[in-house]
Amino acid sequence: MNIELVSIGTELLLGQIVDTNAAWLSARLAEIGVGVYRRSTVGDNLERIVSALRESLERADGVIAIGGLGPTDDDLTREAIAAVLGEPLVLDSAEAARIQAFFAARGREATDRQLRQAMRPPSAQPLSNPNGTAPGIYAEWRGKLIVALPGPPNEFQPMASQQVLPRLAARTGGRVIRSRVLRLCGIGESDAEAQLQDLAQSENPTLAPLAKLGEVHFRITARAENPADADAMISAMEQEVRTRLGAYIFGVDETTLEQAVVQQLTEAGQSLAIAESCTGGLLGHRITNVSGSSAVFLGGVVSYSNALKEALLGVPRAVLEAHGAVSEPTARAMAAGVRERLGSWWGVGITGIAGPEGGTAEKPVGLVYIGVCDPTATVVRRQVFAGDRETVKYRATQYALWLLYQGVMRGGCASLSQP
Amino acid sequence: MNIELVSIGTELLLGQIVDTNAAWLSARLAEIGVGVYRRSTVGDNLERIVSALRESLERADGVIAIGGLGPTDDDLTREAIAAVLGEPLVLDSAEAARIQAFFAARGREATDRQLRQAMRPPSAQPLSNPNGTAPGIYAEWRGKLIVALPGPPNEFQPMASQQVLPRLAARTGGRVIRSRVLRLCGIGESDAEAQLQDLAQSENPTLAPLAKLGEVHFRITARAENPADADAMISAMEQEVRTRLGAYIFGVDETTLEQAVVQQLTEAGQSLAIAESCTGGLLGHRITNVSGSSAVFLGGVVSYSNALKEALLGVPRAVLEAHGAVSEPTARAMAAGVRERLGSWWGVGITGIAGPEGGTAEKPVGLVYIGVCDPTATVVRRQVFAGDRETVKYRATQYALWLLYQGVMRGGCASLSQP
Repeated sequence: MNIELVSIGTELLLGQIVDTNAAWLSARLAEIGVGVYRRSTVGDNLERIVSALRESLERADGVIAIGGLGPTDDDLTREAIAAVLGEPLVLDSAEAARIQAFFAARGREATDRQLRQAMRPPSAQPLSNPNGTAPGIYAEWRGKLIVALPGPPNEFQPMASQQVLPRLAARTGGRVIRSRVLRLCGIGESDAEAQLQDLAQSENPTLAPLAKLGEVHFRITARAENPADADAMISAMEQEVRTRLGAYIFGVDETTLEQAVVQQLTEAGQSLAIAESCTGGLLGHRITNVSGSSAVFLGGVVSYSNALKEALLGVPRAVLEAHGAVSEPTARAMAAGVRERLGSWWGVGITGIAGPEGGTAEKPVGLVYIGVCDPTATVVRRQVFAGDRETVKYRATQYALWLLYQGVMRGGCASLSQP
Repeated sequence: MNIELVSIGTELLLGQIVDTNAAWLSARLAEIGVGVYRRSTVGDNLERIVSALRESLERADGVIAIGGLGPTDDDLTREAIAAVLGEPLVLDSAEAARIQAFFAARGREATDRQLRQAMRPPSAQPLSNPNGTAPGIYAEWRGKLIVALPGPPNEFQPMASQQVLPRLAARTGGRVIRSRVLRLCGIGESDAEAQLQDLAQSENPTLAPLAKLGEVHFRITARAENPADADAMISAMEQEVRTRLGAYIFGVDETTLEQAVVQQLTEAGQSLAIAESCTGGLLGHRITNVSGSSAVFLGGVVSYSNALKEALLGVPRAVLEAHGAVSEPTARAMAAGVRERLGSWWGVGITGIAGPEGGTAEKPVGLVYIGVCDPTATVVRRQVFAGDRETVKYRATQYALWLLYQGVMRGGCASLSQP
């Protein structure tokens, strides 16, 4: 079974609000095995709403309209569905009474505008709205489904979950879709895909890449008669991916790289201190976004000026003068200095040129040195990151987290051989 | 002129990501007077992409495709546009060279997959991508426009702003829509709206509120025959808003609060050092997102542990023991300590409980003390912020930036009277 979504509202087409409803419903439909091959967005215009609904009904087994059910004149979804069904709109007295009660409970009287919301085509059923005044619409037309739900997420989501998805799941005959995301770092999307080309051909479960800034995600999605079978199919595919690319996988589903690092440090019982220059505090911000990070993260120094690199981290002036603030020896001294002065097990030092200004032929914008050290060794990596200022900062912290993750995983900094 | 948008990507139809690009571009198109009456979303399926593009070209003066230009096998937008144009795909040697240089700069060789991104229909022009490898596509077909841009927002937005919107604006001529956003801090949306109620009735220019985390924005939009007239209408409305709420306006259009703070400090020739506890580096990150911030931002200390508050900032142990790490005296000592030790004009200290753990009846989650000092005075404010861990961290930095902005604007910390 496949369904199309039609989001209705001029405010969407003007970009005044982002359509989170469509994404949310798409994810829920995928979970119950309903395919969505097309989504459309139209404004508050009767003719355009009607054509969008008709086109969707030609292509798919049904359409779910989101929004346009409110009390105002530009809420036209009811009229559009009536036109598609070729029926008039009649007042649903039960819903009208509910709307009157809703306002009475607030010491007000329901206006005619408000009561418009109780209108529906005779062949359609109302869907009750526990969090608002506008009921939804559930209709069938030539064996296809026409559903309409109000746009406010706090009304839309419960109505979809409790009244629409169960009906659709029943129609799909219990077939479920489940998926798991494997998160990789340290390898590019195309390189990773090249090693999984054969698996990517699989039709069930499917393997789909998703490139994120500084990460690659692979989503394994399995269709089966029941959750257990789907999970088994996913696990088999995951195993195969892990045998090939396991070294790059740091997490599953929602696990962030900073969460993985904090977890590794916690298990190893090792503390961390960081010295940031070009990243300006972003690394500390990301680490402290992890609840419980205070158990391993002592703190850090943002040594934006050379004077502070000297004063707070003990980077020798000679090093700064001989090699410059953005150099391998400075990154090395920053990592060692912050580790020694803050008394942590691990130390990280980042220095670079985030841009857009400050680049030279020899030291271009995006050049970053990342140093990591523990009691046994210090490793420094040189990278040139593409992108604007914020992107370079993010990539630098991503690289540092990945280096640190590998170091802790492999039992020590000495395991991180220089490239 | 009206344009349709086609967002391409199975991850969109599976609800794995929310389509913020389409909303962003819709808003920008509205500003230059280009109508958008339909948006569509299709998956990584050649046939469906082609039909979506063809349908849009039947209805509108042009179509902008977003996504599907990457190096992988399921990136099919190039092929779809070639099919619509009835042309083959040929290698753009200049773009191919650029991609090779991109990888060479990183000590790697561009794979064939990567070079696929340099393919284009002969009649189309490439749109250069300063932040990534995939160029965009700009083509004309039977007097209509076909544009394709890569999906990653950090690549998509600059390419749209700098290469696509100017071309479209030139074509629309005549009637234009222009807008200006006024950014406010330190006042709630409803309080601000209450003081602008009459202006909100205006139909041209319009005044629309937009609540952001820790800020309120008002967008003034004017329709006119030419840009000059539109700008004059906007300026008149802006003047009226400023007479009523000028004290809360820190910036216009894209100006962020951190940019406003850095600009004020630069003009005043005053330096800044910060001490962060619960915000973990976010304040430094935000300040260093501003290009040129190094002129005034010396650096900071992330003193996540009490030991570091003592060692790096000289917060007296007696203070920590008597009042605790999250207290007015600690915030005061952090601000003064970082200012003294780093030798800056301004000092900021932030200590609080970001949660979700660590709250008590006396010191709940969200409790944050923010201290600001200069050579003349120190001010500490107590706030309890609602929201999850990241929201509390953000609100705390927002409050600190606003306090600092007011202090610099008014000529000194002493001007910030205790509430």
